[in-house]
Amino acid sequence: MNSFPTSERTRIRRKPGRASYDEDKIFDILDAGVVCHVGYVLDGQAYVTPTAYWRHGRRLFWHGSAASRMVQAQARGMPVCVTVTHLDGFVVARTGFTTSLQYRSVMAFGRTALIDDVEVKRSAMHAFIDRLFPGRSGVLRPIRPPELDAISLIAMTIDEASAKFRADAVLDREEDLAFPCWAGVIPLRTIVGQIAADPRLVVDAAIPPNLAAYAEGARLDDVLTSLQRQYQNSGRAG
Amino acid sequence: MNSFPTSERTRIRRKPGRASYDEDKIFDILDAGVVCHVGYVLDGQAYVTPTAYWRHGRRLFWHGSAASRMVQAQARGMPVCVTVTHLDGFVVARTGFTTSLQYRSVMAFGRTALIDDVEVKRSAMHAFIDRLFPGRSGVLRPIRPPELDAISLIAMTIDEASAKFRADAVLDREEDLAFPCWAGVIPLRTIVGQIAADPRLVVDAAIPPNLAAYAEGARLDDVLTSLQRQYQNSGRAG
Repeated sequence: MNSFPTSERTRIRRKPGRASYDEDKIFDILDAGVVCHVGYVLDGQAYVTPTAYWRHGRRLFWHGSAASRMVQAQARGMPVCVTVTHLDGFVVARTGFTTSLQYRSVMAFGRTALIDDVEVKRSAMHAFIDRLFPGRSGVLRPIRPPELDAISLIAMTIDEASAKFRADAVLDREEDLAFPCWAGVIPLRTIVGQIAADPRLVVDAAIPPNLAAYAEGARLDDVLTSLQRQYQNSGRAG
Repeated sequence: MNSFPTSERTRIRRKPGRASYDEDKIFDILDAGVVCHVGYVLDGQAYVTPTAYWRHGRRLFWHGSAASRMVQAQARGMPVCVTVTHLDGFVVARTGFTTSLQYRSVMAFGRTALIDDVEVKRSAMHAFIDRLFPGRSGVLRPIRPPELDAISLIAMTIDEASAKFRADAVLDREEDLAFPCWAGVIPLRTIVGQIAADPRLVVDAAIPPNLAAYAEGARLDDVLTSLQRQYQNSGRAG
């Protein structure tokens, strides 16, 4: 199994049993999400910007308006921390100290780079669409050059990363089990709702096959995970 | 209506119609969540750590192991950026350029401070429990002093904040409406699952009244919003 290197910035010091540096585990958490939180420093101040991302191999991609302050700074190349978190439940224990959350998260560190070759950029933007909606880039109204110019595409190769997770139910200490207080787990999940077609379509309003994975009630993390596998198996370039 | 002050770090330059500095709007987004992403700088490197938070007035609170590197740095007082994001849907448009997400997010800036008075700390930890599970702090096995010592409680008064959101459906340009491609919205929501009682209870396994808000299928953001109102109306100290 491949692992990411660790250093002071990624080594998990507390509860190492709930940490991993394994590529598979880290990719699983990344592939189950679509919004990350990008942390960066401007003039000594930390900023955390939420943005949509996608993964190709050990690289993460995101994009923004070419006019955005975040993207302009990242286009020059800067160290960032990209964090992805999934909240899975409340652990309602017999003590405040053992009350907790169930979650999966990744912190990934690397340096940003601007992708400015127009064909690479177009191809990567298509990959982002197709990672979410297989084959959809081929049916969209084609991208126009001013649209490509208006966005900046940022890539980050993951140099170091760590995963942290808690899937355990209530873990009260033996001595507290006899305390007369209810305890349990409240599971949480993000699901797909009922898809609403745009009212101004000139085509059939039926949901197209490239959105079939988004079945009403499906877990978003399962949908995104299966679409990422499909994307990787398609052999598409990032 | 109260607004937060703005400066270069919070002023939204792009799509100002999707931005707000109003306290009510910012509190609505904060109150609908339980996990934030805290951004901070250590040795010039940005870190983004996901953690549970709660709000009392203009103050945000979070806690961690007293041994945690993040908490130790924040205990000394440092500027941070706290970001809360809710993902509400995919906007599947006729062009890649107009394909987007529905979301609500807040970036809040301020300086951290350690709350080390033991009674204030105990009361705040009770408030966190009661904000999520009304009245529950009174039925838990009481906190022991070493447990309080093992955690550090961090507070941050919000100095500046901005909200950004997109609730709109497909916004393709008029000239693209005739393009023969399906478009629509895939709504997403985080919901409560079926509560599982701990198998080792010495009390009735029935879900207690303080968890009544967590009805199976309820939207988490609605649950957290209504519990925050209940918490504020209870007049509890932060």
